Amino acid sequence: MNKVGVAILGLGVVGGGTYKILTENHDFYLKTQGVDIAVQSVLELDRERARVLGVPEEKIASNIAEVICNPDVNIVVECIGGVGAAKDFVLDALNTGKTVVTSNKELVCKFSHELERAAKRHNAGLYYEASCVGGVPIIRTLLDGLQANRIGSMMGIINGTTNYILTKMTNEGASYEEVLREAQRLGYAEADPSADVEGFDAAYKLSILSSLAFHTKVPLSKVFREGISGISAKDIAYGKDLGYVLKLLAIGKQTPAGIEVRVHPAFVKKEHPLASVNDSFNAVFITGDSVGDVMLYGRGAGSLPTGSALVSDVIYAATHSENKYSTFKNNATAEKDVTFVSDFRSAYYMRLTVSDRVGALSKITSILGKNDVSIVEAIQKGVASSGCVPLVIVTHETREHAIRNAVAKINALEGIVKVDSVLRVVS
Amino acid sequence: MNKVGVAILGLGVVGGGTYKILTENHDFYLKTQGVDIAVQSVLELDRERARVLGVPEEKIASNIAEVICNPDVNIVVECIGGVGAAKDFVLDALNTGKTVVTSNKELVCKFSHELERAAKRHNAGLYYEASCVGGVPIIRTLLDGLQANRIGSMMGIINGTTNYILTKMTNEGASYEEVLREAQRLGYAEADPSADVEGFDAAYKLSILSSLAFHTKVPLSKVFREGISGISAKDIAYGKDLGYVLKLLAIGKQTPAGIEVRVHPAFVKKEHPLASVNDSFNAVFITGDSVGDVMLYGRGAGSLPTGSALVSDVIYAATHSENKYSTFKNNATAEKDVTFVSDFRSAYYMRLTVSDRVGALSKITSILGKNDVSIVEAIQKGVASSGCVPLVIVTHETREHAIRNAVAKINALEGIVKVDSVLRVVS
Repeated sequence: MNKVGVAILGLGVVGGGTYKILTENHDFYLKTQGVDIAVQSVLELDRERARVLGVPEEKIASNIAEVICNPDVNIVVECIGGVGAAKDFVLDALNTGKTVVTSNKELVCKFSHELERAAKRHNAGLYYEASCVGGVPIIRTLLDGLQANRIGSMMGIINGTTNYILTKMTNEGASYEEVLREAQRLGYAEADPSADVEGFDAAYKLSILSSLAFHTKVPLSKVFREGISGISAKDIAYGKDLGYVLKLLAIGKQTPAGIEVRVHPAFVKKEHPLASVNDSFNAVFITGDSVGDVMLYGRGAGSLPTGSALVSDVIYAATHSENKYSTFKNNATAEKDVTFVSDFRSAYYMRLTVSDRVGALSKITSILGKNDVSIVEAIQKGVASSGCVPLVIVTHETREHAIRNAVAKINALEGIVKVDSVLRVVS
Repeated sequence: MNKVGVAILGLGVVGGGTYKILTENHDFYLKTQGVDIAVQSVLELDRERARVLGVPEEKIASNIAEVICNPDVNIVVECIGGVGAAKDFVLDALNTGKTVVTSNKELVCKFSHELERAAKRHNAGLYYEASCVGGVPIIRTLLDGLQANRIGSMMGIINGTTNYILTKMTNEGASYEEVLREAQRLGYAEADPSADVEGFDAAYKLSILSSLAFHTKVPLSKVFREGISGISAKDIAYGKDLGYVLKLLAIGKQTPAGIEVRVHPAFVKKEHPLASVNDSFNAVFITGDSVGDVMLYGRGAGSLPTGSALVSDVIYAATHSENKYSTFKNNATAEKDVTFVSDFRSAYYMRLTVSDRVGALSKITSILGKNDVSIVEAIQKGVASSGCVPLVIVTHETREHAIRNAVAKINALEGIVKVDSVLRVVS
């Protein structure tokens, strides 16, 4: 496959960037990769958008049939997004034996079984580096760079919007609402920000990445998810005093009890390599049994970074004859035999408002103790106002259900104490 | 190639680690990679070493002929090191059509032409991920993850020994000699440390990595090299006051004037992702035209991390039918057409001892000005003792030859001023 025809579906931000990279670098790829890649077709309902990019009129298709029936098209790059038309078009392409390269995390996360079945049946390739962490080649690394390892854990900052918001809140002491509004004004957050701030976007990506890392399909439904919309600037500041930085983490672990996958805000020690990943940058920190700790860092979104991943996949597909189907690679453990752990272990940070009545603290520690939660430190923050003091507690590692039980019991001590926030601490 | 026989040449630290990984994970690779990898032969003069690792007697070869004539051996993993026997054995293996996987940076750096010619001629593979940055898949990333990009620059901390020494000097204010002695005692530095501390090891790796990044052979002779043996704790401390951390950097740049490759100590801003790469950890910071900034971080040495890279290459070779010859990939620019820049641009840090005679400072600034060196800041450190004061100057970006000329002229002002140290500053 030394002469390769590409079709791009959707010429939005990412599709437009991909068109630009492919056309501007035609000669560069010919020289350095030995492959002659030409865009043969684009599918974009807004034909004006295609014209502005300089796509020749005869290459603008009117429907998917024109694209997949075009014998000059070998590889279809899907940049539409979502699981409506994108899913149909990707299946159409695979079913006619065209290799698909996509940046669509929701599609890959939810329908990888179906897509891989179609790809295998028709001997087509299926590549989705661009679906996770933008231009950072994390999928290539898991498949072709660290494959000698049993991956024990991965911890990632894999959503740029939330990392931008948390970085701003940390550096400026601003509230979540303030920073979100600014991010929306600057175009870093959507008008409806929930996909990002509630962790859905990170959960899709974690489902994909942990499926590859742990050699089994990790369904979205198994990913525990908690967003950042309830985060208070106060907790970020108190955490800072304790030497922690708050990040929205996506965590996947292979434990003796099973696979653990979760997306939630968490405090990390300020010396941890993930703590200095700021603004809209992303990073994934992986621990393998042979390689030890490895971290990949870069831009997790944007037209050119995501385009870089799409085009690198196009070149890979064009220069390798084997199609590799990663999620179901060979005889990897079938999904049904896999146990997922929901009652995971973590250390915790709690902020409480305690009445300064004698005995309040001893009641709290007694409840924690009975629920198998032991305290690393308890710090009174500021002085009593209106008879109440804020109290911060950091615990040793315990189980999620133990903390939930303890919090419910503490909150039942009405009039004496209220738990204002509970955050996980990564050690 | 679903059943693959491996031979390991040399069972030292890395070869031993590789044997351990391959044998312990046989079933894991069968399940997750669909490939049955068995160690069929080892070549190790110290047969006792092989026995201790549990190698069956009949698999211990007595000479290279036994290895390369063994029809069950498809892939030869070279862990001998150096360019004596290792070179002969690797060529023997390639010349009989066996794929070679090696961790030998000196061999790949100095003889890649010869090795690749032999590999091509006999349709054998040649893989050397383990030669650079241990288990971090930096070569796979350049070849198969960022290949859509024109790489503008790479900056790496790619020698663990020197990073361990500089980190200790930074954190403890200790002298180079003190820390080196401790590193030697702990086995982090060799009895003759020059390969590491004088930058030879980093220069080999930079030659390999920049050849791949810039799609042309970058010979070792073109790499500017300066080590850390002359570094004073005083400069590290003064740099810290200015917000800098000192690292031994390997820098490769594609500039309009040509390719620039250099290994030397340099100050980086403490906010730069490379500044927090500490102890024996390594990292490479790459800037591509589409992907932007990407960083890979991990352990650059050690038996299992390096073994991870070797075994990942073995699996890659076993599961891909195309052999890719990277340095001379296709029609990449031939070496003779490439210009290398030796008079590179950088900002500089200078420490001088100045007599407090009137006019000394104006003489210095006049010399700098005449040599096209402009000053960002000049700070007097401490108070005059015996009629002399230490002065620290940070310059704007200028050319290396301009600084050298200026320093020579300043040092000629005998009795008035002496330049104690000059360090590059990465901006």
